[in-house]
Amino acid sequence: MNGKIALEEHFAIPETVMDSAGFVPDNYWIELKARLLDIQDTRLKLMDEHGIDQMILSLNAPAVQAIPNHAKAIEIAKKANDYLAEECAKNPERFKAFAALPMQDPEAAAQELERCVKELGFVGALVNGFSQSETTEEPLYYDLPQYRSFWAKVEELDVPFYLHPRNPLPQDSCIYQGHPWLMGPTWAFAQETAVHALRLMGSGLFDEHPKLKIILGHMGEGLPYMMWRIDNRNAWVEVEPNYPAKKKICEYFNENFYITTSGNFRTQTLIDAMLEIGSDKILFSTDWPFENIDHASNWFDQASISEADRQKIGHLNARKLFNL
Amino acid sequence: MNGKIALEEHFAIPETVMDSAGFVPDNYWIELKARLLDIQDTRLKLMDEHGIDQMILSLNAPAVQAIPNHAKAIEIAKKANDYLAEECAKNPERFKAFAALPMQDPEAAAQELERCVKELGFVGALVNGFSQSETTEEPLYYDLPQYRSFWAKVEELDVPFYLHPRNPLPQDSCIYQGHPWLMGPTWAFAQETAVHALRLMGSGLFDEHPKLKIILGHMGEGLPYMMWRIDNRNAWVEVEPNYPAKKKICEYFNENFYITTSGNFRTQTLIDAMLEIGSDKILFSTDWPFENIDHASNWFDQASISEADRQKIGHLNARKLFNL
Amino acid sequence: MNGKIALEEHFAIPETVMDSAGFVPDNYWIELKARLLDIQDTRLKLMDEHGIDQMILSLNAPAVQAIPNHAKAIEIAKKANDYLAEECAKNPERFKAFAALPMQDPEAAAQELERCVKELGFVGALVNGFSQSETTEEPLYYDLPQYRSFWAKVEELDVPFYLHPRNPLPQDSCIYQGHPWLMGPTWAFAQETAVHALRLMGSGLFDEHPKLKIILGHMGEGLPYMMWRIDNRNAWVEVEPNYPAKKKICEYFNENFYITTSGNFRTQTLIDAMLEIGSDKILFSTDWPFENIDHASNWFDQASISEADRQKIGHLNARKLFNL
Amino acid sequence: MNGKIALEEHFAIPETVMDSAGFVPDNYWIELKARLLDIQDTRLKLMDEHGIDQMILSLNAPAVQAIPNHAKAIEIAKKANDYLAEECAKNPERFKAFAALPMQDPEAAAQELERCVKELGFVGALVNGFSQSETTEEPLYYDLPQYRSFWAKVEELDVPFYLHPRNPLPQDSCIYQGHPWLMGPTWAFAQETAVHALRLMGSGLFDEHPKLKIILGHMGEGLPYMMWRIDNRNAWVEVEPNYPAKKKICEYFNENFYITTSGNFRTQTLIDAMLEIGSDKILFSTDWPFENIDHASNWFDQASISEADRQKIGHLNARKLFNL
Repeated sequence: MNGKIALEEHFAIPETVMDSAGFVPDNYWIELKARLLDIQDTRLKLMDEHGIDQMILSLNAPAVQAIPNHAKAIEIAKKANDYLAEECAKNPERFKAFAALPMQDPEAAAQELERCVKELGFVGALVNGFSQSETTEEPLYYDLPQYRSFWAKVEELDVPFYLHPRNPLPQDSCIYQGHPWLMGPTWAFAQETAVHALRLMGSGLFDEHPKLKIILGHMGEGLPYMMWRIDNRNAWVEVEPNYPAKKKICEYFNENFYITTSGNFRTQTLIDAMLEIGSDKILFSTDWPFENIDHASNWFDQASISEADRQKIGHLNARKLFNL
Repeated sequence: MNGKIALEEHFAIPETVMDSAGFVPDNYWIELKARLLDIQDTRLKLMDEHGIDQMILSLNAPAVQAIPNHAKAIEIAKKANDYLAEECAKNPERFKAFAALPMQDPEAAAQELERCVKELGFVGALVNGFSQSETTEEPLYYDLPQYRSFWAKVEELDVPFYLHPRNPLPQDSCIYQGHPWLMGPTWAFAQETAVHALRLMGSGLFDEHPKLKIILGHMGEGLPYMMWRIDNRNAWVEVEPNYPAKKKICEYFNENFYITTSGNFRTQTLIDAMLEIGSDKILFSTDWPFENIDHASNWFDQASISEADRQKIGHLNARKLFNL
Repeated sequence: MNGKIALEEHFAIPETVMDSAGFVPDNYWIELKARLLDIQDTRLKLMDEHGIDQMILSLNAPAVQAIPNHAKAIEIAKKANDYLAEECAKNPERFKAFAALPMQDPEAAAQELERCVKELGFVGALVNGFSQSETTEEPLYYDLPQYRSFWAKVEELDVPFYLHPRNPLPQDSCIYQGHPWLMGPTWAFAQETAVHALRLMGSGLFDEHPKLKIILGHMGEGLPYMMWRIDNRNAWVEVEPNYPAKKKICEYFNENFYITTSGNFRTQTLIDAMLEIGSDKILFSTDWPFENIDHASNWFDQASISEADRQKIGHLNARKLFNL
Repeated sequence: MNGKIALEEHFAIPETVMDSAGFVPDNYWIELKARLLDIQDTRLKLMDEHGIDQMILSLNAPAVQAIPNHAKAIEIAKKANDYLAEECAKNPERFKAFAALPMQDPEAAAQELERCVKELGFVGALVNGFSQSETTEEPLYYDLPQYRSFWAKVEELDVPFYLHPRNPLPQDSCIYQGHPWLMGPTWAFAQETAVHALRLMGSGLFDEHPKLKIILGHMGEGLPYMMWRIDNRNAWVEVEPNYPAKKKICEYFNENFYITTSGNFRTQTLIDAMLEIGSDKILFSTDWPFENIDHASNWFDQASISEADRQKIGHLNARKLFNL
């Protein structure tokens, strides 16, 4: 189909490009690096060839989230956002932007998001999982209390927040020991991001800020398949003493979350997601340049769903969500 | 439907019963404890009421796996297995047995499995995830090289091995910090067990022992939904340098794995599993006494699948797999 | 769920009630007749008990369509519509109305529809298949040329037209000979109505009047399952010399048709329909009093679809389609 | 996938080939005729190219069924069967045979089936719907009492009976008047064959001969989607006075019927069929030469089902059903 909009689509600046080096074998790095640094050339050509009308671009991972020094994180985020604004301005009909945010410093992150949305015309933010900070050894997840004012700003600006994966820290990944192939997109990305999303839901964040809109990639990082069990395991036990939120997890997931098809081009999985959250909450994406645009498009254009849902997932939902 | 067979059904002996105390709030413990210690009374009555013809019983979790002292682990496993053999003998038409195994000591585990199968008539083993050992701080996953002779024995005895969940160790769970509600069946069980299963598949175990049959509960611990992505992320990258096995993960999953419905009574999820691995590899189970038998049965008896598949999943697959 | 809207819900007036006598065995007729003649009593009580907020009411079948005398058909249609308007006025928050139409006389039908919509506040029309006329032996299907001005009026009034089943005439049903159990809702209704709908689509009607909105009951009378084959059989044959319309059948079906769940309370069938036409085009209905309200509601309230789709199919789609 | 078996695959002899002339526009007839008369050349080449290991061949339609003269019908059936036996003998690893049967004469049909199975090694019969006879104007459906001895022979020989479509007689198709595009595979084939199958089920045939195995093409001619409604419409009415069989229609359909994918290459439809009757009862077929082998194979090889089901539907079910 033509007219598709894709929203988990990455680029890099020279300062962040090496963050992506480890995700492919060495002999693929030249190609991946070129893909990451390109915006107006190969990317646009592939978009044209495969019916992608618009891409919402975002910085590669983990980038800003992995810079413990707050000043440096702020600087790189601004630099990436300014560069992205310039690139989008070259072809504003085809490219929109997600802000990179220095989440190590919640206030700075809120300010940078406001600047990006109000001054640069960005349509939301994409953040690569937890942040590392010079002030703590612990990974900073955004359900922590210090992030509530940041979320208030996101709600006020009324833009979606894309929670993108990153790998767990070494100390939190001994289960993967000896199995480096399980890191990254194969498995660890999804587990890390799914738990982060569950933490947000279970923390009561959406009780306080009910209008927040969170986007997850990769068909929801596994959550739709397990959603019933999350809420209903041991259903004869009617109390959950340690659970801080007011509603069931599935209620937040249905109300506040969107998912994209990035990197999970499987019709069975898409159908399951549709039967859990409905087609209004699912959006096409490719995960370029880590995934191929032709793989994503050829699959999606022929997936065994209704044409009405193909239009929604392909672009209508994105047009509504981002006012495109 | 009548005639169902259920195979993730737990009991406890006094030495292990307290291992289950933490999974429910205090005021439910009296009930859960009574359920765990009962075999011939309430359990059988509920089986009759809800059309369950046979249960394959297994020790509660983590039990033997959490006993670092090898001698003690061996002793408790034998004690539990001997007790279970006696209980099954009281009603051999209704109860079959999975062996508990002291996996801390691979040779002892192999011997105990052989004893249970050949002398006690057990139909397989159920093991609660990784084992802890007095000889190491590290959790022992069964893809480790020292387990290959154990697996050779499992293959020789030609009985299924049920890989049941347990929680990760505290040092491997900082992602859950501050969110104890995510532990256990809500989420951590599935993640822990899914990775353990992936480690088995990725280690080349099934290249060496291609006839092994592994069972996963809870509709496959999330794996079917993400299976395509595990094998196909970044599909333009044609090599996987660190991956030690000969085939793709999905080939092992399709060939060597079975899944049960235990604790995941969701039709959408069942349909997705059927479209990924087919109905011959899915088996009904309840997860009693943590889940209610009526919840499992009422759901399954009316799930929106064909009657042919209901018969297969309900009992025919189990009769074939366990020669019942 | 509460708040449901149902739109294939029938009543009778004394002049038409006997038309429904043949659809149930004699000993059920007293009950069925009472159900048909009741509006404000049992019906409302059942609506309350099963979460149905509103019913759009329509005359029983075949009623007006089976009255060959045009004057009589016109008279009965007006009488039924006037009676229905009065009944709706007694409880306007709960009851809306579909017009009965004397389709034997296209101009009279157009006039009566206009009167019902503009003067009586009706939300559309429900017609029971082809009409019989004193002027011909042939059943009058509404793809015939003389109906184009009627359809122009429907499009102008911008209200949906529900194409409800009736049985084929005896001369067109020799395939059912000796098998009266196949008549009516068991099978003949669906076949008769599906072909009528295909005739409308294939006639080019929707090329001329692209804004028409046709509703089919009983999950689309079998069409979604066979839709691909209708358009794609013998796909190597690139021309269809006898086909008068401009687009493929599925394009009209996707664009101009809605379906309801009336009398087809099957989740598998609903899922297939969702994967063919999408959940925005499917609307809850019961087919009272031929079907039980509890059967319809208990099924729908628990069907294995997303909550978002349950809200849409349950009432949101109807609110949008009928401006309720 | 390789190794597929296809079983609705037609050929013609000079005496029957013109029966297929009307199904395509004139300018396609040269190609279709050549396809029908070929067995060892283009057909085999396409089978090789698209992974079809074996075809079970059958005479085109309506052929023998449309020859009212009994002697002539018997003669043509024998001639076609003898020719087919010779052709299969040329390449017995690739071609198997369904018998054409002169159903106008039940006894002759039984004899010819016995001859074909016992002497010629045929694996079953394929019959093109009702038969026309010199002794009656009425179409002869095989639920009629005079066919019970024929069915006894089918059951005794223990071979499947493929009920293939034909168009209704003109007097039974006034609903299609003015819409010739609805005839044949577009719609009329399915309706005609579905009702014939329902007549068989509703007649009590399978009560008398419970081991009969009937095959329907085109994903079951629409029956799976409507099966629930057939048995459950008006479920509050607990009696069905005119229904002659002992069980519900779905019980016969689940027990005695198989369906093929011929000419209905739609994944949504396949999934629905799987959720109604299970994957053990569905068999791959193309409907060559009316459908293209590449269309059938390219679709099926990539349909969104499990690999286990692809193997079953692709060939394992056929190997079991026909002892291949």
